[in-house]
Amino acid sequence: MIQTPYLLFLGDAPDQLSAKVAQGIKDWRPENAVGQLRMANCGASVGLADLTLAEAKAAGAKTLVIGVANRGGVISPAWKDVLIAALAMGFDIASGLHNLLRDENDLVAAAGVNGRSLFDVRIPTVAYPIANGKKRMGKRCLAVGTDCSVGKMYTGLAMDAEMQRRGMKSTFRPTGQTGILITGGGVPLDAVIADFMAGAVEYLTPDNDADHWDHIEGQGSLFHVSYSGVTMALIHGGQPDALVLAHEPTRAHMRGLPDYKQPSLAELRDLSLKVARIANPECKVIGVSVNTQNIAADKYETYLAEIEAEMGLPTVDPFRQGAGRLVDALAEI
Amino acid sequence: MIQTPYLLFLGDAPDQLSAKVAQGIKDWRPENAVGQLRMANCGASVGLADLTLAEAKAAGAKTLVIGVANRGGVISPAWKDVLIAALAMGFDIASGLHNLLRDENDLVAAAGVNGRSLFDVRIPTVAYPIANGKKRMGKRCLAVGTDCSVGKMYTGLAMDAEMQRRGMKSTFRPTGQTGILITGGGVPLDAVIADFMAGAVEYLTPDNDADHWDHIEGQGSLFHVSYSGVTMALIHGGQPDALVLAHEPTRAHMRGLPDYKQPSLAELRDLSLKVARIANPECKVIGVSVNTQNIAADKYETYLAEIEAEMGLPTVDPFRQGAGRLVDALAEI
Repeated sequence: MIQTPYLLFLGDAPDQLSAKVAQGIKDWRPENAVGQLRMANCGASVGLADLTLAEAKAAGAKTLVIGVANRGGVISPAWKDVLIAALAMGFDIASGLHNLLRDENDLVAAAGVNGRSLFDVRIPTVAYPIANGKKRMGKRCLAVGTDCSVGKMYTGLAMDAEMQRRGMKSTFRPTGQTGILITGGGVPLDAVIADFMAGAVEYLTPDNDADHWDHIEGQGSLFHVSYSGVTMALIHGGQPDALVLAHEPTRAHMRGLPDYKQPSLAELRDLSLKVARIANPECKVIGVSVNTQNIAADKYETYLAEIEAEMGLPTVDPFRQGAGRLVDALAEI
Repeated sequence: MIQTPYLLFLGDAPDQLSAKVAQGIKDWRPENAVGQLRMANCGASVGLADLTLAEAKAAGAKTLVIGVANRGGVISPAWKDVLIAALAMGFDIASGLHNLLRDENDLVAAAGVNGRSLFDVRIPTVAYPIANGKKRMGKRCLAVGTDCSVGKMYTGLAMDAEMQRRGMKSTFRPTGQTGILITGGGVPLDAVIADFMAGAVEYLTPDNDADHWDHIEGQGSLFHVSYSGVTMALIHGGQPDALVLAHEPTRAHMRGLPDYKQPSLAELRDLSLKVARIANPECKVIGVSVNTQNIAADKYETYLAEIEAEMGLPTVDPFRQGAGRLVDALAEI
């Protein structure tokens, strides 16, 4: 686990979108961040106090999290002075970039001298077991998508947050680098060795109280040929009791695959249930989560109502409407 | 690629079953093996000439293949003298054991001194791409199983051998260590990083002549929760034109999973086709391959006839009957 609270490093972020990781932490675990650190030419802000390293240290920050991704996912030379100074002041550093902290000799040296840790959250650090398929105590919910990047992580985080608000027992279980940085721990599933994928998910979502829900972060899509194996392992390792169908309705084709059309929600429901019931015969689809960001403010509710009528399932955009109705539906199973 | 021909090292194999890899090479690529090397207490033979290292060298052998697996998959200290002598005489060494050649310092040193290579075929050596899902030229056949270890590799090898006999264009494409050692190359799919599984399969089965068939070695099962993600990536990366259903009818439960029952062949057909048609809408199931080794000699033909009537598909045990009828069925699509 990465030590919290964090100082969020925004560096020389060219725009707001490039600070997505920092924004995610601010949105979902504000208690995990004491402030942000921006360089002179930074073009982003997540609306937290601008702190120096010394001020952040005084405020209790334990880890500097790289909350920005520049083009190519590299660690910019311009960042190095700040990162090395942070290690010298006793911060750990955590990053989800492709360019690993551990591959930068100057950072490794500075971490060694100062007895600090570098966390590359894209890389597994645990020797995960082979999945044993045994039924586990507690309940699990998983969002499955018609495509990649349709809002599965957002759906899980929003349902978890809503359950916390209601005083219900709930944990968000990250399976990707952004989720891991938000909560401080998880499994970077797309970097796990094939044979151990389902076992890594079992490890991530152990036995729990009978009335506790794990919200497992979804990945890929059964219908996305590049990543469907990861999704399959997530469903069989996660043995979900509840599935939420996640959809982005304005895509011309599957992400990155111009020759592949998105499946319908009915096709997603049927294949996902068939697959999920291999691991958990009691699994049910409880709702639909639609990312309507590309639908106008005066049109999206009509669209959601149409989907709700067609699918016979509670249908919401959790960003615009909250995840309350999805949590209501969970309570019924 | 591993250089052929091989000398098959049987070492101190306790019994015939432990020499399964050597037997596979002898059965399927006899032209790849000049002979076998057995230690004094060896309890196995694959029926090839017993050669010393010097005799094998004179016969043209390039690589000593460890064709035996002892308990735990370790490289036995008792083997070391032979292996080091082989490196000194100019052999490469290839192994599919869990215990890697590269982790044995004395072997690494001897290989270095003599300028030889150590091949651990469980470990990928290629940086595989992310799958792009593009339609490739040529045709592909894949065996999918009701369970793990039901005869998928055997089915693919037998169909490839039958097509070679008929003068048809055909290649066996290994995805596991035994298959890789048999042919000298392939992708160790269960050891590939999750994100690159389907891409590794695309890499393994590139564009080919329109009338050429790749027989892709199957792995796992969509119904085996420990490994289903690997199977899924194999189906979506392989984009098969033809599926063969592989089955072992006497299992009490899924291999290693006492709480999971095997699916029926009809369930296997339906789920496999649904999944395969995401990548290749023209995919067809062309036959059933049953491993009847646990059914008596006077009963198995009746059983196969029953399955054939039930499924409406050519149904054979390729070990007992050959793969001719499966190849006939391929020719029709």
